[in-house]
Amino acid sequence: VVDNLATIALTIDGSEKPIFVGRGALGLADELLPNLPSRVFVVSSPTVWNLHGSRLLSGLKRIEAVPVLIDDREETKTLSTAGKIMDAILLDKARRDDAVVAFGGGVVSDVGGFAAAILLRGLRWYAVPTTLLAMVDAAIGGKTGVDHACGKNLIGAFHFPEAVLADPELLATLPDRQLRSGLVEALKTLWIGDAASAQTASGRIEQMAGRDPDDLDVLIKSAARVKAEIVGRDPREEGLRRVLNLGHTLGHAFEAAGGYRDLTHGEAVAWGLAAALDLSVARAGLPEAEARGMREALRRLGPFPRPVRDPEALLAFLRRDKKARRDGISGILLERVGRARIERISEEDWIAAASRAVL
Amino acid sequence: VVDNLATIALTIDGSEKPIFVGRGALGLADELLPNLPSRVFVVSSPTVWNLHGSRLLSGLKRIEAVPVLIDDREETKTLSTAGKIMDAILLDKARRDDAVVAFGGGVVSDVGGFAAAILLRGLRWYAVPTTLLAMVDAAIGGKTGVDHACGKNLIGAFHFPEAVLADPELLATLPDRQLRSGLVEALKTLWIGDAASAQTASGRIEQMAGRDPDDLDVLIKSAARVKAEIVGRDPREEGLRRVLNLGHTLGHAFEAAGGYRDLTHGEAVAWGLAAALDLSVARAGLPEAEARGMREALRRLGPFPRPVRDPEALLAFLRRDKKARRDGISGILLERVGRARIERISEEDWIAAASRAVL
Repeated sequence: VVDNLATIALTIDGSEKPIFVGRGALGLADELLPNLPSRVFVVSSPTVWNLHGSRLLSGLKRIEAVPVLIDDREETKTLSTAGKIMDAILLDKARRDDAVVAFGGGVVSDVGGFAAAILLRGLRWYAVPTTLLAMVDAAIGGKTGVDHACGKNLIGAFHFPEAVLADPELLATLPDRQLRSGLVEALKTLWIGDAASAQTASGRIEQMAGRDPDDLDVLIKSAARVKAEIVGRDPREEGLRRVLNLGHTLGHAFEAAGGYRDLTHGEAVAWGLAAALDLSVARAGLPEAEARGMREALRRLGPFPRPVRDPEALLAFLRRDKKARRDGISGILLERVGRARIERISEEDWIAAASRAVL
Repeated sequence: VVDNLATIALTIDGSEKPIFVGRGALGLADELLPNLPSRVFVVSSPTVWNLHGSRLLSGLKRIEAVPVLIDDREETKTLSTAGKIMDAILLDKARRDDAVVAFGGGVVSDVGGFAAAILLRGLRWYAVPTTLLAMVDAAIGGKTGVDHACGKNLIGAFHFPEAVLADPELLATLPDRQLRSGLVEALKTLWIGDAASAQTASGRIEQMAGRDPDDLDVLIKSAARVKAEIVGRDPREEGLRRVLNLGHTLGHAFEAAGGYRDLTHGEAVAWGLAAALDLSVARAGLPEAEARGMREALRRLGPFPRPVRDPEALLAFLRRDKKARRDGISGILLERVGRARIERISEEDWIAAASRAVL
């Protein structure tokens, strides 16, 4: 029995794709996840499988679960790894009524969801995230894909999981740096769409970084609600959904310029957010007092490794942004906490903001 | 000026995806194809590019066209080839407003369309088929993908081209065996959905096999109309569209059992159709006289190499059919010329029909 289960509704193309969040929810996986087939392939990493595989198996007690373990470092989020997942599933005589369960962090849900998207022209899949980043962001929203030598997530598909099941108890074993990285992403989401929860979260940063389970539970539910609300209105990022990229245009460039080693995704986004806050004060009327409060919340999650700020390196990566078009790169600015807007920003302004960003 | 241009309407998820058919249409590519960007990547084979590349370039005179040439044999319709196409396009700094033009036969449109489907989570693409098979079948309907060691088309996506442009003049250079292979597929489509055109085609088999340009033009238009009509009503093959698989369940098994070398796709489908006609007479009330007429039309396109009929080999491939589910493999039967239905058929009945099929 899960006494604090939240079911967050998400409707995509007329189908319900619920998000379940609650401590202990994993144990009820096969009662909560809708339309489970009799067999699922569980894409996971050796680490996650060793730590939590038996809990997943007890949650999926009524069905057959075949593990497919992959190296889940960002460096191996490649077409080749997706190919290995597909080899394993096809060699086991996959049928259209099988499904994939992605059980891990963002790399596992990105590449596992992508493999599901293109196996037999689309198998159903379920996301069971095990990191905070995946619970509040990567596992929600149907973006799946892999990286390419030319940039992150350049190969992929929109393919929504039938359901997401997030159990905050899994976070007990998450490395501290990854926990803080996920907290950055959760704050970002609240800043875009939920000023009240953002305020609450800012006041409980230390407790969340210290893994207070109730605080994390509240945070995941509020961030997942904001993301689901935005994704439901623009599932394929044709407009509105772009606001979720707050801090990510420069964040991706910082991450790439550091070779995906120096900074975690969340750390790179923290620097991207710092720059976006400056741009927001200068161009979107964000009150400096609000920006200061947000910078302070980020700072309490640090200190973060410093990013590469070389303009040429950053420009090369900015121009590879999937959202880059011939007429420039769009950025996201905050008008207030809880209200974001999209604005085209020149390369010069991006670079100037990157060089000035402080945390 | 194209004096006999047909524009066949196809609406997918509310968007128009027209199919243009007409002799000389290639020369008007950039006037006919809607919403062309300023740059396209043309996926093609060295053979097609050498024979017809300059005609495509004169048709695309107003925009930049970057060729990406691939080996287009069925053996190389793999994830690795899709990866090479994506490498070339990404290294050329692909942006979301670029598009792909697949210029070739079925392998080129399958793998080129698939690369477009997963590049930057979906680039627009256009199909400019150069074989009869691709003009009447492969390029229409949004099925894209690659083969896997475990079977054909096991990896892929539904991704509809913005438009299809079929110029029958390109068929002048098509090898005879491929022309006949395409004629089999065109007959199949007419048998499913257009009795009158099927009758006309049966009476003009020799002229079509002899490449009479007017007969081919009429055939392509009528077959493309039938396929577009069916695909428009069931774009993602959730039901009705399966009728297009007439002859293909066994056809794919014959093709696989021959290692994709002994029989072309159309030849394998011819044998699959012969078996489907027997099953249709026995189980769906197809009048024997009609079946005889259809067998005779196929025979005049032969003689075809004989297929492997070993039950174990065929069964292994039948069970890998993407449409196989735990409760059996669905087959398509004809009740009359122009009227098909879907029926679950046991493995034993498939094998018996395979062993008896004659042409």
